[in-house]
Amino acid sequence: MAKDFSTRAENYSKWYNDIVQRAELAENSAVRGCMVIKPYGYAIWENMQAALDKMFKDTGHSNAYFPLFIPKSFFSKEADHVEGFAKECAIVTHYRLKNDPEGKGVVVDEDAKLEEELIIRPTSETIIWDTYRNWIQSYRDLPILVNQWANVVRWEMRTRMFLRTAEFLWQEGHTAHATKQEALEETHQMLDVYADFAENHMAIPVLKGIKSENERFAGAVETFCIEALMQDGKALQAGTSHFLGQNFAKAFDVKFASKEGKLEYVWASSWGVSTRLVGALIMAHSDDNGLVLPPKLAPVQTVIVPIYKTEEQRRIVSEKAVEIKNRLEKLGVRVKFDDRDTHKPGWKFNEYEFKGVPVRIAIGPRDVENGTVEVARRDILKKEIIANDQLDQTVLSLLDDIQHTLFRRALAFREENTRTADSWEEFKQILDEKGGFILAHWDGTAETEQKIKDETKATIRCIPLDDDKESGKCVFTGKPSEKRVVFARAY
Amino acid sequence: MAKDFSTRAENYSKWYNDIVQRAELAENSAVRGCMVIKPYGYAIWENMQAALDKMFKDTGHSNAYFPLFIPKSFFSKEADHVEGFAKECAIVTHYRLKNDPEGKGVVVDEDAKLEEELIIRPTSETIIWDTYRNWIQSYRDLPILVNQWANVVRWEMRTRMFLRTAEFLWQEGHTAHATKQEALEETHQMLDVYADFAENHMAIPVLKGIKSENERFAGAVETFCIEALMQDGKALQAGTSHFLGQNFAKAFDVKFASKEGKLEYVWASSWGVSTRLVGALIMAHSDDNGLVLPPKLAPVQTVIVPIYKTEEQRRIVSEKAVEIKNRLEKLGVRVKFDDRDTHKPGWKFNEYEFKGVPVRIAIGPRDVENGTVEVARRDILKKEIIANDQLDQTVLSLLDDIQHTLFRRALAFREENTRTADSWEEFKQILDEKGGFILAHWDGTAETEQKIKDETKATIRCIPLDDDKESGKCVFTGKPSEKRVVFARAY
Repeated sequence: MAKDFSTRAENYSKWYNDIVQRAELAENSAVRGCMVIKPYGYAIWENMQAALDKMFKDTGHSNAYFPLFIPKSFFSKEADHVEGFAKECAIVTHYRLKNDPEGKGVVVDEDAKLEEELIIRPTSETIIWDTYRNWIQSYRDLPILVNQWANVVRWEMRTRMFLRTAEFLWQEGHTAHATKQEALEETHQMLDVYADFAENHMAIPVLKGIKSENERFAGAVETFCIEALMQDGKALQAGTSHFLGQNFAKAFDVKFASKEGKLEYVWASSWGVSTRLVGALIMAHSDDNGLVLPPKLAPVQTVIVPIYKTEEQRRIVSEKAVEIKNRLEKLGVRVKFDDRDTHKPGWKFNEYEFKGVPVRIAIGPRDVENGTVEVARRDILKKEIIANDQLDQTVLSLLDDIQHTLFRRALAFREENTRTADSWEEFKQILDEKGGFILAHWDGTAETEQKIKDETKATIRCIPLDDDKESGKCVFTGKPSEKRVVFARAY
Repeated sequence: MAKDFSTRAENYSKWYNDIVQRAELAENSAVRGCMVIKPYGYAIWENMQAALDKMFKDTGHSNAYFPLFIPKSFFSKEADHVEGFAKECAIVTHYRLKNDPEGKGVVVDEDAKLEEELIIRPTSETIIWDTYRNWIQSYRDLPILVNQWANVVRWEMRTRMFLRTAEFLWQEGHTAHATKQEALEETHQMLDVYADFAENHMAIPVLKGIKSENERFAGAVETFCIEALMQDGKALQAGTSHFLGQNFAKAFDVKFASKEGKLEYVWASSWGVSTRLVGALIMAHSDDNGLVLPPKLAPVQTVIVPIYKTEEQRRIVSEKAVEIKNRLEKLGVRVKFDDRDTHKPGWKFNEYEFKGVPVRIAIGPRDVENGTVEVARRDILKKEIIANDQLDQTVLSLLDDIQHTLFRRALAFREENTRTADSWEEFKQILDEKGGFILAHWDGTAETEQKIKDETKATIRCIPLDDDKESGKCVFTGKPSEKRVVFARAY
């Protein structure tokens, strides 16, 4: 592989950007902080969407669509929410342009000023709960289990493709329930769906836990999350599921008549994952030869590259290649036969290796004669000659094996990079020399977490959901603690 | 069916709104001109998306995603485009809110004013062609066949759910080609895809044609369209495919090196359909008993309603219903078993009739004993008793038959309501008394079309693509004409 791009060791951040660019996943646009998601990157997102959407529907949810715009006043209705979301946002103030009287293109028509400014949704709790008020009268109208696939905008000052952009794509589930118990169960269920998706589709092991107060969603009673570890030892929050209590029901006056005929406020959850998962996918598996994709999410699972010199060879090889393509597609494999004559086989090998295609099949005239093909796997960069009549089974088991190998590799990496720290010195040393997850005791106060963050840039990624209680002393203040929490520097 | 909603004859416009509301398709939101698409309405759109997306991919297109925001200056680069699109639009001028110093919620932070205003995309030609400039160097980079599923905003003053809303959902294809011929072929191909979708999925016959200059897309050389006829005799433009020539390539300086090494401007097409198709679907088939849906797009194709009195009957009936549901789902039918005990069978019958579910299966204890079920079809409101062992075949052929019956009915309606007019009196009389499509001669000038529109509100829906030439005289000016064109009042 040509070495005109960065390795992880040389410059992790540049390595990431090089992959995004050279694998044609995305690029910066003319609009500050907004990216263009290119076809190959978008195809990964489409595969994520398809898998998640099925999981949402299998758990009883339906999709709907709510307005892009939110009246400014809606944000002020929930006190915490306004602090968290109504600050760095895109604000629509006018609804008409007119020809510039001086002849220079178009200018804003000051006569077309909105009475109340509209905010481009940074998240939709407010507009959705304003809508739910009309949907809910009685317990018979509950639960409401709705999801939305949409674009949202948060005016981030420092952006990075997929990981943090001003506009991004996501899904946001918004559910309404008659009881606290049911809303909590929903919150947990969707956290499990996210963990299942991360581990079994993205091949990324995740920790499930609760966010500390500092990292909680603005407006939530409790935020649950899944946290993944990237190859540079930084954590990445891969999904959140919020128990909103009755906060939004109270802010938007959403009550229901219970079976007993009493008027009560509705209980809520919301949950979301976004295109930042594409960034996590890139960073979790890729290597110094480019992108590595788990087969379940790869836009192309198997590429066929023909090798020939003469036109006659081309004809024979292509015929075989098409036959193989059809066979594999019948088995449900996403196959591409790259028969372009504008590029040489070697160039194509590099191209698909860099783009992370899990399995590559090369076939030349000798192979056709011998009834063989060359099969290469991207994860461990090995290849072998396979008899044509064993190819179907080989490809299927390779795809399965690559999916599991990537997960095991990521899991081993996380285990190697999860350490306990029992003193402040040890904590700082691990963070600076090794990174990764640090299990440490914490006194439970927002103040201490803030001080640790100020000094080290590490935050509490989550308070693990498991029941491993252990008495100890806060790594920073020495005050008593009942349980270790997970610290890390994070994306 | 309870008659507390309007019939078509009483008040067509109210009938439409009643269906949208009572079938739970959509509702107005707190934001002027923006609607909430409710789960049942959104599920219809999802079915449309799935079918169209497959057709786009089968014809070689990929999806991508471009920014929601377009810098204001981009609109001024294509002279016609700015006139058509950069007027009634949502304009982002600021990127931050702050706490109101007077303590009343949040206000716009005047310090956070954008240097250049951003327009919420009304259509994406400009931002996409600004992007394509970097994607295209040589003929090897062509064609580019990209589609985007997105939300767009046009600040319409008079809105109607699905048919005309400030924000709507759509897809927009944007392709780039090396030759005029290839771009024109693409434009025609996508028009054919839309016509195929309209006729074979929506069960709505459409006329294919070319738009007159007055109705042409702002920035296009030629706009092709499919036109459908609604039950009130008004036309509805159901999809457009634009041949853009080199207009946007020139505006955004997009050139490629040809095989001969010459630098040339790229040729373009764009094409789109939107959530207004849901409005067309409602108006084309529904009747005075509510929504009628073609099976291919119906969120629920078959509903099973259990009938019972005792708990024992309920158990027996449910067991049979679940068995039927599983059997039909295995055949690929979208089935709902409504086993709610909060509503009576009669209520459910009305509900699903109103919501346009194509096939209803009712099953009671007697049916279980006799090995029968009652099967009702929504399109012609007929029901019959079927032996259980013939049910699978019956449902499959009913779904197929309903799909075709709806198309034939719509086609017959269109044929009855397509008339020729050879004088101005006749033209006005047909329009006022009958509506529908009018085939009339036109002198080919924008001026005459405008005058006809001013006097009658009718416009040229399209110049048909067929080759039926016929000499005649313009119905308005008496000047010579070579071909009849299609006039109608339109949505």
